[in-house]
Amino acid sequence: MSKKQIRRIDIDKIKNPEFLNDLSYEELDQLSEDIRGYLLDITSHNGGHLASNLGTVEATISLCKSFDFTKDKIVFDVGHQCYTYKLLTGRNLKDLRKKGGTSGFQKMSESPYDHFEAGHSSTSISVANGFAIARDLNKENYNVIAFIGDSSIPNGLSFEALNNVGANNHKVIIVLNDNNMSISKPVGGFAKAFRKFSTSGVYLQSKNIFTKLFNLTKLGKKLLRKLTRVKNWLKKKVLNITIFDTLGYTVIGPVDGHYIKQMDKAFAKAKKIKNSVVVYIKTIKGKGYKFAEKDVTGEWHGVSKFDVNTGEMINKNACATWSEQYNCILKDEMKINPKIITIAPATEHGSQLDSLFKNFPDRTIDVGISEEHAFTMSGGLSASGYHPVISIYSTFLQRAYDELSHDLARMNLNCTILIDRAGLVGNDGETHQGLYDEAFMFTIPNITITMASRTSEALSLLKESTCNHGVFAIRYPRETVSSCSEEVKKIPYGTWKEELLGKEVAIVSVGPMTLKVKNALIENKANVTLYNAIYLRPIDEVKTLELLKYNKVIIYNPYATKEGFANALLIKLIDLGYKGKIVCMTVPNEFVKQASIDEQREQFSLTVEDVLKEVNK
Amino acid sequence: MSKKQIRRIDIDKIKNPEFLNDLSYEELDQLSEDIRGYLLDITSHNGGHLASNLGTVEATISLCKSFDFTKDKIVFDVGHQCYTYKLLTGRNLKDLRKKGGTSGFQKMSESPYDHFEAGHSSTSISVANGFAIARDLNKENYNVIAFIGDSSIPNGLSFEALNNVGANNHKVIIVLNDNNMSISKPVGGFAKAFRKFSTSGVYLQSKNIFTKLFNLTKLGKKLLRKLTRVKNWLKKKVLNITIFDTLGYTVIGPVDGHYIKQMDKAFAKAKKIKNSVVVYIKTIKGKGYKFAEKDVTGEWHGVSKFDVNTGEMINKNACATWSEQYNCILKDEMKINPKIITIAPATEHGSQLDSLFKNFPDRTIDVGISEEHAFTMSGGLSASGYHPVISIYSTFLQRAYDELSHDLARMNLNCTILIDRAGLVGNDGETHQGLYDEAFMFTIPNITITMASRTSEALSLLKESTCNHGVFAIRYPRETVSSCSEEVKKIPYGTWKEELLGKEVAIVSVGPMTLKVKNALIENKANVTLYNAIYLRPIDEVKTLELLKYNKVIIYNPYATKEGFANALLIKLIDLGYKGKIVCMTVPNEFVKQASIDEQREQFSLTVEDVLKEVNK
Repeated sequence: MSKKQIRRIDIDKIKNPEFLNDLSYEELDQLSEDIRGYLLDITSHNGGHLASNLGTVEATISLCKSFDFTKDKIVFDVGHQCYTYKLLTGRNLKDLRKKGGTSGFQKMSESPYDHFEAGHSSTSISVANGFAIARDLNKENYNVIAFIGDSSIPNGLSFEALNNVGANNHKVIIVLNDNNMSISKPVGGFAKAFRKFSTSGVYLQSKNIFTKLFNLTKLGKKLLRKLTRVKNWLKKKVLNITIFDTLGYTVIGPVDGHYIKQMDKAFAKAKKIKNSVVVYIKTIKGKGYKFAEKDVTGEWHGVSKFDVNTGEMINKNACATWSEQYNCILKDEMKINPKIITIAPATEHGSQLDSLFKNFPDRTIDVGISEEHAFTMSGGLSASGYHPVISIYSTFLQRAYDELSHDLARMNLNCTILIDRAGLVGNDGETHQGLYDEAFMFTIPNITITMASRTSEALSLLKESTCNHGVFAIRYPRETVSSCSEEVKKIPYGTWKEELLGKEVAIVSVGPMTLKVKNALIENKANVTLYNAIYLRPIDEVKTLELLKYNKVIIYNPYATKEGFANALLIKLIDLGYKGKIVCMTVPNEFVKQASIDEQREQFSLTVEDVLKEVNK
Repeated sequence: MSKKQIRRIDIDKIKNPEFLNDLSYEELDQLSEDIRGYLLDITSHNGGHLASNLGTVEATISLCKSFDFTKDKIVFDVGHQCYTYKLLTGRNLKDLRKKGGTSGFQKMSESPYDHFEAGHSSTSISVANGFAIARDLNKENYNVIAFIGDSSIPNGLSFEALNNVGANNHKVIIVLNDNNMSISKPVGGFAKAFRKFSTSGVYLQSKNIFTKLFNLTKLGKKLLRKLTRVKNWLKKKVLNITIFDTLGYTVIGPVDGHYIKQMDKAFAKAKKIKNSVVVYIKTIKGKGYKFAEKDVTGEWHGVSKFDVNTGEMINKNACATWSEQYNCILKDEMKINPKIITIAPATEHGSQLDSLFKNFPDRTIDVGISEEHAFTMSGGLSASGYHPVISIYSTFLQRAYDELSHDLARMNLNCTILIDRAGLVGNDGETHQGLYDEAFMFTIPNITITMASRTSEALSLLKESTCNHGVFAIRYPRETVSSCSEEVKKIPYGTWKEELLGKEVAIVSVGPMTLKVKNALIENKANVTLYNAIYLRPIDEVKTLELLKYNKVIIYNPYATKEGFANALLIKLIDLGYKGKIVCMTVPNEFVKQASIDEQREQFSLTVEDVLKEVNK
């Protein structure tokens, strides 16, 4: 077939995936290439998840050909690899991740083709299990698919689901997308087992040969039973037995995840099998874009605006992010404190700890997407005299609520929790907001909670956190640091800092926005007292008493909901008999939709101007 | 050896386990029997965990012989099977689980032999991993042991740990105690795989035979690769490959967990192996006590006072427990509402749902100790039009904070959470308190939170919970129900009930204690208004406005800390400009130690008398 005969699809005009069945495999390959170009164009302007989407174009096409998602159901694990699915089901990505625009994740309100929503990892098999049970109770007959990456599988929730689905009779098709990388490198025995998958896993069944072999091996049966080495050799080299086999699944694959025809066949087979099945596909993350294909650290996993030709990030902030700052501070601290061990659950790159991990290979641990294990293991480290520093995004800390309480705080074990992306996170939207950790840590006894406004304070807090205070949490936002070279002074435990001294109105402000508020107050010559509430728990008892003399107290915490620090301080003031006006400026307790962080702050009247307005009321 | 020569040990005089090495195996068997008698005696008086402790006597003796726990470290998973360990390390169990007495779990403050603490399931391998990393960094040389039951293994946290430990080089010895039962029946593919363990798992290595077989199988290698059926047959019948093999562990066993000599050998071998190892022992839960051995539902897992001879529970309350009540109510509701599916994470028996599970085999699911999966799977069920009712203990709900938020509340999916053992739980102590769920649910948007004081209200709440309110939580305590046959009336969503109308003082009271307060107020002819705050979130806006006219408002919630409902109502009153006195009577935000529930209420001044005192102040 000559190139001229290959029809090309106008991606913007796609309404639904029905057209796919009319295309030849050559045309589908052309479409794949076109979609990749489209995705590069979109993400280079809007930012978003790139590498995982480039890698799953063909797989999504094959899925949409092989299944009918007006009846069949699919859950994309994590959900950030569903861009091609969005395009094929008629959604526009021009306003991807923007305020009011298309979400970067599956979204039920967007399309009937989206059957569930995710953002956190490893939920897909559980959800698919729920779908399958409902289907079977209704005596309906459709396919349920969980599409999940290699890094999301070795997680506790995934495993609980694998364990249950493997044993019950509610069929689920698990498409395991192995791109050999995911957010950080996959870790653990599970990942090692993956890598042992043979590349020729075609399953033939010849009754004749089977019978012969059966008889032949019958002789060796008793001997085999006794021989560990033979067993291991058979297990590893010949049988390629995986954890899925052990749990009762039929495994199909490995299949080349960029070879649509091969996947079509595998899915057709998966449909016919009665019990739950794993279709194992191998893809190249970043496929078709040289910079992303070469990436080994995860730089091209999630991107901001970039130049497609040069691979250069545009507008890369001159200022350092808070993540980078904590990387430097922690690195320095680890140099002088040999008891510190840093643990990150697959967020080594996301939290910009790459150089720290490189510098301290023996005292850094990436446990993969295993938040619960990260915390409970830290309990063991702490009880052994080490000081674990757990670096984690606020939104993922939710996964370890119990371990934080039961395995650390309850025994008052020493450790530091560095909570990255605390507060509003912008375009990722509802699933990734870092708004709740502060409030839920207030429900657990024995946890110190802090937030610095300057890097000098950050350093001081990190040092203090290693001084036998039990669980010590340090929050920081997904923002850049206002450069501000101040002398590092020890901040006494549980105290605030007086930034400005004035009359009548006092502001108790939390985090880096405090400095912007300070500058605005100075500029406006406002006669206002400004406290920098570095310690959110315990609160500064002395300064809280001083608040009693003001007519109005504004509690400004744009990094959390009211249920944590704001409520605690408010109630303390009431208990002390405060009779003036208390105004809480915090994020409302809701699931906050995607927009830029600035837009979100405007939406909730949490800008510096809003503070000034409140002062002048 | 005649019976006369067998020395018997005075259990009360044991100081440490050193004496064990001087005893013959016959004497150790006698000691095992004596310990079992001792445990029966103690638990029949004090209550506690019985069956699991009877089953692990010999294993604990062998462990204490084989290791030196002044240097080596052991973590008992869950921790409730450590009674023999306590006895062998010189602790008295006479005051077991009583106020100020010996804990029913490992407790670091009790003895240097306790290296960590647990109460929740599946933490031991993670903790052991932490210990092992610390040991290796210190270049020390001791053994680290995780002792874990078959039901605790197929849990997310355990799996995350298994996955990490299997791949890293920090050796841990996992003693897997398979008693084939645990809290409820073990479920899932993992459990099925267990049952396939051969009973003759001795590992011999004969180089000669090995070589022969290698050559022989070389011929069949290519064919084998192609043959699924042969593969499965080999896998299941001949090789007994377990998930542990897949993850990189050496597996020793199965070993008879009541045969001390065999275990001694297995542990000696485990010590010699370089990498992490699983010692698989099989024990009989309830060993030596006929009633407990016969138990298939878990009745003898945790017991209250009983008659050792007859197996009859003493003082078994004439009144029904709240758990039983909800079992009945939910059963009735499931009869008329075919969309309800009830899910319990291994607490089917603990929450007294046995008859409900029996009545509705198709619409009840025990997922094992997989709290996270229970919630996320419910998301799938709910999105498919079913109404999941998740029954869970308050303390275990902590494991599913993220799933409750991310996979249910965020999408406003309909479901009911029946939160059993909410509030003070008594003798289990710190690890099992049901005090925090109310507060942490307040940090998550979209969750309705309720608590009934009477069964008629419970029924009404359960019905209301199925009426499209999103996530609807119903809390109930570990207590009996005051008999109180009242007519079932619909309680409008978000409202309280006025129990008494008086002047000057208003009490807003939560849960079953409300009725006791009511009776006391009537008896004392107190002229007080009493609101029964059935809805904790949203609060009753109309009745909250009415509160403004009282000089004093007492918020009485003996079932939670202040951070939830009490703070929310207090702040609402302040926002409305209330100028009177507000008194919060709640459990302090701390980890509450073991004692009876009544003792704990006295300790925190939360008795009915304390309420009367506050009224009269």
